[in-house]
Amino acid sequence: MKIDLEPSPVRGFRFAGVSAGFKAVAGALDLGLIVADHPASAAAVFSANRVKAAPVYVTADRVKAGRLQAIVANSGCANSFTGKPGMRLAQDSCAEVARLLGCAPELVAPSSTGVIGHLFDFEKMKTGAAEAVRNLREDGLGDFARAIMTTDTRPKTATTSFKAAGTTITIAGAVKGVGMLSPKMATMLGYLMTDAVVAPGALKRSLKRALPTSFNAITVDGDMSTNDTVVLMASGAAGNRALGARDQETFDRAVSDISAALARELVRDGEGATKLVTIEVRGARSAADAERAARQIANSPLVKTAFFGCDPNVGRILMAAGSSGAYLESDRLVLWIGGIKVAAAGRLITEALPTAGKAMKESEFTVRLDLRLGNSRASILTCDLSYDYVKINAEYTT
Amino acid sequence: MKIDLEPSPVRGFRFAGVSAGFKAVAGALDLGLIVADHPASAAAVFSANRVKAAPVYVTADRVKAGRLQAIVANSGCANSFTGKPGMRLAQDSCAEVARLLGCAPELVAPSSTGVIGHLFDFEKMKTGAAEAVRNLREDGLGDFARAIMTTDTRPKTATTSFKAAGTTITIAGAVKGVGMLSPKMATMLGYLMTDAVVAPGALKRSLKRALPTSFNAITVDGDMSTNDTVVLMASGAAGNRALGARDQETFDRAVSDISAALARELVRDGEGATKLVTIEVRGARSAADAERAARQIANSPLVKTAFFGCDPNVGRILMAAGSSGAYLESDRLVLWIGGIKVAAAGRLITEALPTAGKAMKESEFTVRLDLRLGNSRASILTCDLSYDYVKINAEYTT
Repeated sequence: MKIDLEPSPVRGFRFAGVSAGFKAVAGALDLGLIVADHPASAAAVFSANRVKAAPVYVTADRVKAGRLQAIVANSGCANSFTGKPGMRLAQDSCAEVARLLGCAPELVAPSSTGVIGHLFDFEKMKTGAAEAVRNLREDGLGDFARAIMTTDTRPKTATTSFKAAGTTITIAGAVKGVGMLSPKMATMLGYLMTDAVVAPGALKRSLKRALPTSFNAITVDGDMSTNDTVVLMASGAAGNRALGARDQETFDRAVSDISAALARELVRDGEGATKLVTIEVRGARSAADAERAARQIANSPLVKTAFFGCDPNVGRILMAAGSSGAYLESDRLVLWIGGIKVAAAGRLITEALPTAGKAMKESEFTVRLDLRLGNSRASILTCDLSYDYVKINAEYTT
Repeated sequence: MKIDLEPSPVRGFRFAGVSAGFKAVAGALDLGLIVADHPASAAAVFSANRVKAAPVYVTADRVKAGRLQAIVANSGCANSFTGKPGMRLAQDSCAEVARLLGCAPELVAPSSTGVIGHLFDFEKMKTGAAEAVRNLREDGLGDFARAIMTTDTRPKTATTSFKAAGTTITIAGAVKGVGMLSPKMATMLGYLMTDAVVAPGALKRSLKRALPTSFNAITVDGDMSTNDTVVLMASGAAGNRALGARDQETFDRAVSDISAALARELVRDGEGATKLVTIEVRGARSAADAERAARQIANSPLVKTAFFGCDPNVGRILMAAGSSGAYLESDRLVLWIGGIKVAAAGRLITEALPTAGKAMKESEFTVRLDLRLGNSRASILTCDLSYDYVKINAEYTT
């Protein structure tokens, strides 16, 4: 499905991004608001980390009813590992936004991203929320995307439109990175809005179906945030008839495609990343084996530094696959880097390495490992490990 | 037990390290030889990687009989992922050494470390082996240690002596790094020699007992080599009476202590490492949980870059523990950095952070996480992730 990386209005929603003073840089946008004209169908997925942030608990609790009307998201402070005061702060922030909007507090879900272990200033939240409500605009998604950025170097949005159930349906989304398995607690936050009429259960299924090929198929550094959240909301403003099986299929595909496009933008903007690399493992005996091998390659610091150095280091890739726990036989597997076959029949194809090294100079390439043992496959999007990754993360202060 | 980090003679063994021309730098030592005067008791452990190098297969096969007389170890080429020609090369090298020594080829075990996917030159091996045999000396362990170095910045040896079974027993060892979970296929190789009379089965038990607190309790980057090998050989030259239960206990402790000392040297010399950090997890519900949490913290790029930056980033440490799969409750756990309590009762102890940051400026410190849920514990030695790690690994060429 065609995905446009620009923000666009979605009928039934308004957006804002303002500066509440949470970030150190004066005037930087750090408070975002998404508001549906009426309570919207909603579904969400969250971090699997055992240490979860207060806003994750509050959002998870509220989305259970399948309806949300607003999202209040701040950057500059993760409100994670903050105990009961953190829970109160998340709830109070929602109550304040609900008061300003004139809706029930249970219809407002909070998100936070930034430094862990600290509370944000509630007075700043109140002032910021009032300003955000005044600034709500149908074309405000770009501002919202900017307000949730942390180490992101650019806002990330996407839009798609398609015909289904007798009308044109739009889905737009905004995310911040830099990975579902994300660096420095900076957290992956994602919001998808559609004007379609869709029940919460169907939204949840769409989202779960999209995850394995989008937000769960990327990695920047193998670390997993405490705040990761993806929300999908449907305003119903498109007024479509009930989605038939084929409409639902189209809708699901659109959610998967826009999620994949946004996930890709997250990795492209990974901390210090200079290259986007797809790790494809096929021919595995099981899906679990394929995923294990792909993830181990995608997360190996040795493989990622070799990507940075444009070094067709077959040994590191096979070492990672071999240590992943996936069953493999080194005499059977075949490996390609950037489309160039570099290993087969238990041997390195030495003469192919210079060409593979050249292919690695591109900003995007694929590493494909065929284990030739079965029919299972997995694909993970990763980036390289550069000096800038160390710089960004060693100089960041709690 | 007192461990000296200098090489020392061990009765019944001679050692050599020569330049065979495998390394690019002219004159660099790259072929090491360990020879026992008579067939020695022997035991060994190997990489768990599914991709194993030819010398690992050959050594594993030969050590099964419990006897070895010589080790021929080269750096500059890993002879891994080299198929049948690699197996032949490993066997031919042993046969050549056996011919020169006048012993059975089955008593010679090969080791290789360096770049993967390539064969070394057999003519160079023959010339080098002849020179090594001519150079065998009782005090040659230092040269041997130098000959097996790859990105190691210094040779690593250790010696200990103790009374047992009515005599003085010596154990000496040499290792190269930089981790059992090792970088760039550079491989962890370790050799321990003792003059004690010990049967192969007891050697194997000593080695297995030493691993969890030494070579298996360290990490540099979470990657696992295809060539990792640790061999323990006993010449019997001490002529001690059979080891009683208490003697065996003393011997086992000596093997554990010298292994731990050598493992520590490996991490201290980890690629780009500026700090040695002990990650202690206690109070876990199970040993598996303790180990999972400790390893995840020890391998997290975010935690390791924070170490490099002397940043007491509690959030990253808890994020890593929380994503490890270990059961934990964020309200119960207590965290110390460099002896300073920085988190408890579900909250960050903000006022303690500057002192913790100061403690992190030391070249060695401990991170202790008490989950307060049970009695299991684990300890892993790790290092920081610096610019130099990226530099070393991005600029290394296959």
